[in-house]
Amino acid sequence: MSRHITLGPGAEFDAVRALLDKWGTAAIGIGDDAALLDVPPGDRLVVSTDSSVETVHFRREWLSSEEIGWRATMAALSDLAAMGASPLGVLLALTVPRSWRGELPALAAGIGEAVSKHAAPIVGGDVSDGDRLALTITVLCHTRAPLARSGARAGDSLFVTGALGGPGAALQAWLSGGTPTAADRARFARPDARITAGRWLAAHGAHAAIDLSDGLGGDVRHVAAASGVRCVLLLDAIPRVAGVSIAQALSSGEEYELLVAAPVSDAAKFSAEFAAANDGLTLTAVGRVEAMHDGADVVAEQAGLRVAMPSSARAFDHFAAPER
Amino acid sequence: MSRHITLGPGAEFDAVRALLDKWGTAAIGIGDDAALLDVPPGDRLVVSTDSSVETVHFRREWLSSEEIGWRATMAALSDLAAMGASPLGVLLALTVPRSWRGELPALAAGIGEAVSKHAAPIVGGDVSDGDRLALTITVLCHTRAPLARSGARAGDSLFVTGALGGPGAALQAWLSGGTPTAADRARFARPDARITAGRWLAAHGAHAAIDLSDGLGGDVRHVAAASGVRCVLLLDAIPRVAGVSIAQALSSGEEYELLVAAPVSDAAKFSAEFAAANDGLTLTAVGRVEAMHDGADVVAEQAGLRVAMPSSARAFDHFAAPER
Repeated sequence: MSRHITLGPGAEFDAVRALLDKWGTAAIGIGDDAALLDVPPGDRLVVSTDSSVETVHFRREWLSSEEIGWRATMAALSDLAAMGASPLGVLLALTVPRSWRGELPALAAGIGEAVSKHAAPIVGGDVSDGDRLALTITVLCHTRAPLARSGARAGDSLFVTGALGGPGAALQAWLSGGTPTAADRARFARPDARITAGRWLAAHGAHAAIDLSDGLGGDVRHVAAASGVRCVLLLDAIPRVAGVSIAQALSSGEEYELLVAAPVSDAAKFSAEFAAANDGLTLTAVGRVEAMHDGADVVAEQAGLRVAMPSSARAFDHFAAPER
Repeated sequence: MSRHITLGPGAEFDAVRALLDKWGTAAIGIGDDAALLDVPPGDRLVVSTDSSVETVHFRREWLSSEEIGWRATMAALSDLAAMGASPLGVLLALTVPRSWRGELPALAAGIGEAVSKHAAPIVGGDVSDGDRLALTITVLCHTRAPLARSGARAGDSLFVTGALGGPGAALQAWLSGGTPTAADRARFARPDARITAGRWLAAHGAHAAIDLSDGLGGDVRHVAAASGVRCVLLLDAIPRVAGVSIAQALSSGEEYELLVAAPVSDAAKFSAEFAAANDGLTLTAVGRVEAMHDGADVVAEQAGLRVAMPSSARAFDHFAAPER
């Protein structure tokens, strides 16, 4: 089979041809009505879809077009990183306003770089006109033993990958008219999906994982609710980027780090092995899981004492956010 | 596994909960980061993504919210009907402006009805804010022997399912300030994806198929280009709804009928068997496939003579369309 089907005439197909030129070997089999893929025997298919919409998830003046493409792709891949799954491919639905058409090659370059990094070929897509740039990316993966957010059990330790707070600090700087630090900006603009880390964790006994797209303070509640447990966060243990408060680290969304529940008594040894297998990426114990007989709960501790959860620690909620 | 994961708090999750209430058993396993599915052993996975965007693909005043949900879902399923594949599930990415939030239950009802008709459960999704309503629907199917648009061979007959021109006539009426006939409006508002028909055709020797989302005049060019053949359309044979010209039938997009290339000498017998297996849906021979030594071509015949293709016979091109 040839790598791509020959496309008919028309401006919409010209746009697709320009994208394919940019992607090269990062895209396969585009142009037919649908793409064909094979799931390895014995594995299950894992799928997820994620939209990045201009002014909702980013503003044009904050990011280059390459970064917008990269970030949207990594955000979509991140959902499956939390499952411990391996990529099969991605489908792209792009809504491209007229004012953005000249940026298509740059957007495509960012998308292509991100999918290539995780060996997730582009296998299909759709391009539409619209008022705002929107990238809806569906990710297909496979795995034999999927992680879920519902698997946390009493006695588990809670871990997070990396250091939190960078994307939130960058957003806060932009929204208050300032300029983020280069480090915070990079955390927002060039996140990496923790695909390799998720696989390592699934293979080393993790019970549950979730990516921190809503922020640790919000996502830990999803784990507690889905698993029917109490999650205890040790506030002083939360790994943070420089200059960020605990409250900011808890509320910083779009992190794309993982929160993991795993049954390990020797957290330090687990973290060291993890770092060795994942290019030095840190894994930090940040709490524990306790039994709940009815319902679910999240509580905070500091210096061994139960404390109130810092007040800005809420999930970023696209529907509750003020008009921007 | 419970049917759905317990969702955490927040307005975005409230919206998802309202959708799940509406869908009932039409949705499974929503709420985790990703959905798990199984492809039957020996089958291949087939995937496609399709967006329906307000003012680009429909206008709010033309359709009820139920119809918008139904139509977007059938349009997405239609791409895989042309492969002869069976549904595994769908993922929905909805961009919902504030002015549309009250319509979410009605949109969800239309989506739910459409997926239930074709046994394609909703397995995941994403809800974002935005300026225009947009429904991006990714369809996952499986098949052992996929059809493609690239399989047409010299000697094949060309067939179409159903009768063409209704959606184009409805659009034309709306765009010129009139009211479409009830029959034309129904063809636009309540299309059906030809999933069962596509499976029958794949099982009965069809070589290639494509859905007529760009209109017969445009989509036959895609088949010719992808297969490297000349397609000869017999203009008088094209099945049309009442009151529609040949040119209109050729240019009417969003049809969701199938164009099929199949090696049958006795087209009448093939059509009769097809109708018996597909609830009386017609299959009409509309032309033939000829060899091309270099390139691809589409030509028209009437009364045995080569004629010019009627001039409005061009694909609907979202990028070339005037601003509306």
